Amino acid sequence: MTIYIPTLSDMNAAHARINPHIHRTPVLTSRFINSLVGAELFFKCENLQKAGAFKARGAANAVFGLSDEQAAKGVATHSSGNHGTCLAYAAGRRGIPCTVVMPRTAPQAKKDAVRGYGAKVVECEPSTSSREAVFAEVVAATGAEFVHPYNDPRVIAGQATCSKELIEQVTGLQAVIAPIGGGGMVSGTCLTLSNLAPHIKIYAAEPEQADDAYRSFKAGHIIADDAPVTVADGLKVPLKDLTWHFVRNHVTDVLTASEEEIVDAMKLIWKRMKIVMEPSSAVPVATILKNKDLFAGKRIGVIITGGNVDLDKLPWQ
Amino acid sequence: MTIYIPTLSDMNAAHARINPHIHRTPVLTSRFINSLVGAELFFKCENLQKAGAFKARGAANAVFGLSDEQAAKGVATHSSGNHGTCLAYAAGRRGIPCTVVMPRTAPQAKKDAVRGYGAKVVECEPSTSSREAVFAEVVAATGAEFVHPYNDPRVIAGQATCSKELIEQVTGLQAVIAPIGGGGMVSGTCLTLSNLAPHIKIYAAEPEQADDAYRSFKAGHIIADDAPVTVADGLKVPLKDLTWHFVRNHVTDVLTASEEEIVDAMKLIWKRMKIVMEPSSAVPVATILKNKDLFAGKRIGVIITGGNVDLDKLPWQ
Repeated sequence: MTIYIPTLSDMNAAHARINPHIHRTPVLTSRFINSLVGAELFFKCENLQKAGAFKARGAANAVFGLSDEQAAKGVATHSSGNHGTCLAYAAGRRGIPCTVVMPRTAPQAKKDAVRGYGAKVVECEPSTSSREAVFAEVVAATGAEFVHPYNDPRVIAGQATCSKELIEQVTGLQAVIAPIGGGGMVSGTCLTLSNLAPHIKIYAAEPEQADDAYRSFKAGHIIADDAPVTVADGLKVPLKDLTWHFVRNHVTDVLTASEEEIVDAMKLIWKRMKIVMEPSSAVPVATILKNKDLFAGKRIGVIITGGNVDLDKLPWQ
Repeated sequence: MTIYIPTLSDMNAAHARINPHIHRTPVLTSRFINSLVGAELFFKCENLQKAGAFKARGAANAVFGLSDEQAAKGVATHSSGNHGTCLAYAAGRRGIPCTVVMPRTAPQAKKDAVRGYGAKVVECEPSTSSREAVFAEVVAATGAEFVHPYNDPRVIAGQATCSKELIEQVTGLQAVIAPIGGGGMVSGTCLTLSNLAPHIKIYAAEPEQADDAYRSFKAGHIIADDAPVTVADGLKVPLKDLTWHFVRNHVTDVLTASEEEIVDAMKLIWKRMKIVMEPSSAVPVATILKNKDLFAGKRIGVIITGGNVDLDKLPWQ
């Protein structure tokens, strides 16, 4: 099987394509957190992105890159997280059908968010076999284009636009750190920085309790977790061939943090920076705090990936 | 007794003076909230201000406007809210002493925040008489300059810089709405807009359960609440002569909202805009939602006044 590796041209085309449909999110700083970590952190706030997550970038790139003929048949995905919401958002902007297959056990708020953008939710049982069977039925019935949450060159080219903005907004960065689940954001970061700013080191941050990327990186081949449990619920999914390509070739290191460290970092950022972000987005700061020597005195870009959190179930309560 | 009414020149001088010490805070928007209210809202995010509140502006103007001689003796105030924290922040920036008199019953987090900026906390009993006696002792012992939380021309001129930025950041505003407690932010808004954009209407938003400004506005003279109880704890204090001057002369109307409406609006903004802000900051949106006709189709500036909230005690939990 051959895979298509997206290029810098794909990223530039993506940025031109999605610009009307995304926010150029702000970069925020906190003197207090800087003094705590002993480095200068620049937070790229994708929690303030359309639909509340960076995944609006990749989803919009996939949706707006479709031919009119394919677009008429719509798009589909399986996701109980931000990708489903963001694909629904992008499809809604183009005015085309979108179906998201979700386990019937997924939170009502997630289903409501997808429906709120005008997409259809089709429920499956909470198992891989049921999800695959139901998804195949959806695609067979509609002819919808499958947009994978991360292992898709269109999606990675879209996520790559985030780092392009970041290096335009902040000069002199020496490293960029992003959380890693399936690796879509990290791959996009690698795509852009390896071409436009290859001196910037790229770190991936991961929960200890879902450390498949860490173990894959050390082993030199993809290792998947077996049913990981972590508060950073956006980071449970495994690497796939396309994202593994970028991680293996361009990531400097994968750093991990414990559940307690993640929740403490999340609360710290909420308290000092006054932004609502997901537990997944706190993993980079958690790993910086426990690897201060690595980052001391440096200018570090930190990607805050999303803000879709259940306000009634905060992890410190 | 004569009072000095700050002028547009004072506001411009304030902005030049405090610029190195404050953030030019971003203006955020939410398509979802716009569709809900039927108007275009532009949120001026002073929750992202230094020390987490707009009060950094007025405090910095007072502190950096002092002569070296007076500055050496320091500043003092009584406040268990954002003004104390912000005065401590400003004094810390100038490197001068600061004393904040607070009831011994004030939350530990508030005392810690003041001390975190290098200021001294002096505790009093939770009564007006004790506060006044203890504060008089502090001033007698130190010669510190008293900076009132709002009834001070230097403070109002500082708060007025917020609306100057807002009208530079957003064109075509037809109204601006801000929460009202003592009236410092509303007075600053009146100062700037009545001079620079007198066609923009100014609304003050207040909790029903602390509606002294509403009743004062309707009666034509200052009426104080008797021990108001509201989740919007920054808005309990009464108008004073200087702020009453601005409210009486320049405010179009005072609108009120119930406790439930305030908490609902707060949660809506956290959820959709991904920002952490105080209950007080939610009062404007709560009042817009119940007065949709008044704002329909208009471009409205909404001042988010602060983000210092106890994350362990959120009002919807």
